[in-house]
Amino acid sequence: MDRTAIDGDSSWFEPDELELLRRKVPFPYIDVLPVRTDAHGRLTHLGLLLRATGESRIALSLISGRIRYHETIREAVVRHVEKDLGPLALPELPTSLVPFTVAEYFPTPGFGPFVDERQHAISLAYIVPITGHCEPQDDALDLSWYSVAEIQQPEVLAGMPHGHDLLVRRALAWAGVA
Amino acid sequence: MDRTAIDGDSSWFEPDELELLRRKVPFPYIDVLPVRTDAHGRLTHLGLLLRATGESRIALSLISGRIRYHETIREAVVRHVEKDLGPLALPELPTSLVPFTVAEYFPTPGFGPFVDERQHAISLAYIVPITGHCEPQDDALDLSWYSVAEIQQPEVLAGMPHGHDLLVRRALAWAGVA
Amino acid sequence: MDRTAIDGDSSWFEPDELELLRRKVPFPYIDVLPVRTDAHGRLTHLGLLLRATGESRIALSLISGRIRYHETIREAVVRHVEKDLGPLALPELPTSLVPFTVAEYFPTPGFGPFVDERQHAISLAYIVPITGHCEPQDDALDLSWYSVAEIQQPEVLAGMPHGHDLLVRRALAWAGVA
Amino acid sequence: MDRTAIDGDSSWFEPDELELLRRKVPFPYIDVLPVRTDAHGRLTHLGLLLRATGESRIALSLISGRIRYHETIREAVVRHVEKDLGPLALPELPTSLVPFTVAEYFPTPGFGPFVDERQHAISLAYIVPITGHCEPQDDALDLSWYSVAEIQQPEVLAGMPHGHDLLVRRALAWAGVA
Repeated sequence: MDRTAIDGDSSWFEPDELELLRRKVPFPYIDVLPVRTDAHGRLTHLGLLLRATGESRIALSLISGRIRYHETIREAVVRHVEKDLGPLALPELPTSLVPFTVAEYFPTPGFGPFVDERQHAISLAYIVPITGHCEPQDDALDLSWYSVAEIQQPEVLAGMPHGHDLLVRRALAWAGVA
Repeated sequence: MDRTAIDGDSSWFEPDELELLRRKVPFPYIDVLPVRTDAHGRLTHLGLLLRATGESRIALSLISGRIRYHETIREAVVRHVEKDLGPLALPELPTSLVPFTVAEYFPTPGFGPFVDERQHAISLAYIVPITGHCEPQDDALDLSWYSVAEIQQPEVLAGMPHGHDLLVRRALAWAGVA
Repeated sequence: MDRTAIDGDSSWFEPDELELLRRKVPFPYIDVLPVRTDAHGRLTHLGLLLRATGESRIALSLISGRIRYHETIREAVVRHVEKDLGPLALPELPTSLVPFTVAEYFPTPGFGPFVDERQHAISLAYIVPITGHCEPQDDALDLSWYSVAEIQQPEVLAGMPHGHDLLVRRALAWAGVA
Repeated sequence: MDRTAIDGDSSWFEPDELELLRRKVPFPYIDVLPVRTDAHGRLTHLGLLLRATGESRIALSLISGRIRYHETIREAVVRHVEKDLGPLALPELPTSLVPFTVAEYFPTPGFGPFVDERQHAISLAYIVPITGHCEPQDDALDLSWYSVAEIQQPEVLAGMPHGHDLLVRRALAWAGVA
């Protein structure tokens, strides 16, 4: 199995070692919602990735990933955005690292709304306006922009695994557009 | 007396009428801290206005002003930024209108840290990155950029009336740079 | 018409004067969602008021009201909670006055999600755990507690005027329970 | 060496194993500031622990600790509060898990304001009102309450290692009392 297929940013560990660690400690994570805003800063569109999942299916997805050892949160956000959207995306990181929500992913189904069968992850979620040009990379097959109205349609939200539909709802609520 | 000298955005009222209203109801306000950020979104500099005060003195100041009747908060932020910094300042408004702090200005000295002898104002305070070119306008004589270290020097903070030094400290705390 | 029927906290103004002011300046407001929490602080129930509206109908409602001249936000929250829930409600006010959302009510239908035909109000919204005994007062006919699941049922949310259903959704999102 | 002396909540690991993990992955942490509030929810006092440090010195300290594997953030907060303040402290956890700040502790001196020579920790910081009776436990020798004015005296803040003085300042700023 390809290491990238397990986790795009696992390059510092052998797969076996990462698997072992994941059964022992919770991992600090970030979730990023790429957005477009209008001239007054109001959120107008959200970007979702079409990502190949492990079971050769395709799912709508946010930008997510681990914070590495000795990496700052800001570095992790930039790294994951560039990994998925390419080096010309020009993300505008927020002034404050206070997240709009904290998502607790557990490997045990039914333990809460956020599920990640691989690990216990504690994720800081950010909204990040994208001002440049996106070229989906790596295992991100494509990026689609949805208007605030479009993304709230049940068929879109239903296509998001891991509880990411809830992250989208919380982002819209915090941004004051739903 | 010139109306602008009383309040830069009082154009919808005669001075007498505004004075009367100000003794009856609290006014919704905004305070904006213009900032520069680095490529990772980290706050590096804050901009302070040199403003002529009523008593022909000069004070360091934030961008502040009323929210008008039937005006949105985003419109008020853009209007006040353009009024003080000119039309080419290109402010990046935050995605969320949740302020980093709420400042309660009272006309009575000693009632709290924020004082405005003219009125009771309830102010939503925002950090706004400025990406364009600033040309101080109106009663704003000049704009000076201070690094995070410089602005915390006692002589700078001491020159800020109305409790604005406290707003600067809260902004730095919220932005995670102090 | 009874003054209380216009606005529960209008006692400092004659109705005519209040009507006049309301067409000239926006009013600072608060919205309070009374909640019950479990031993770990997790939101379990929200309280909605059954309130008689002007047109002799009944609507589900939050605790809302003006901030008076020279009143602090904390005083306004306590005053409105006691007015609607009685003096034994024992509200636990939040440590920070940063609201979970800012609601902009406009008198013009269609201008935004929050509508108040009487005025332009800028409202700071807070979640306030209630630890005591509630005795609905004044024009609040009754208080009903809804579980997090119950309150999200369409028939409950649909019964909330002014866009208050949106405030409930944003509160649940911010509290991390929806 | 006693395991508790290394880390109060390391009971799930042998010391060697914990040391090894700490050089490989960042640890999700919490920092808790115990506070007293008045009837209007306003922060009046902060509690600091007198804690024996590894080098047989004594330092003023917050309540800090790891989030364990498969433990919720709320469980971790309650566990660490009870560990340091005893089972009768009756902490009032916040309704939202959005922290007032995120502290990034690095093992490398000079890398940032928060330093922890043992590990890279990413800490969610919360203000938690304490309503019960505190009996310092374990390696917490005593708990002292400081008024908002007292805690800002340089000699108090200077006695706080790891950058905890900065956490106190950010907490006061967020709570709107400094």
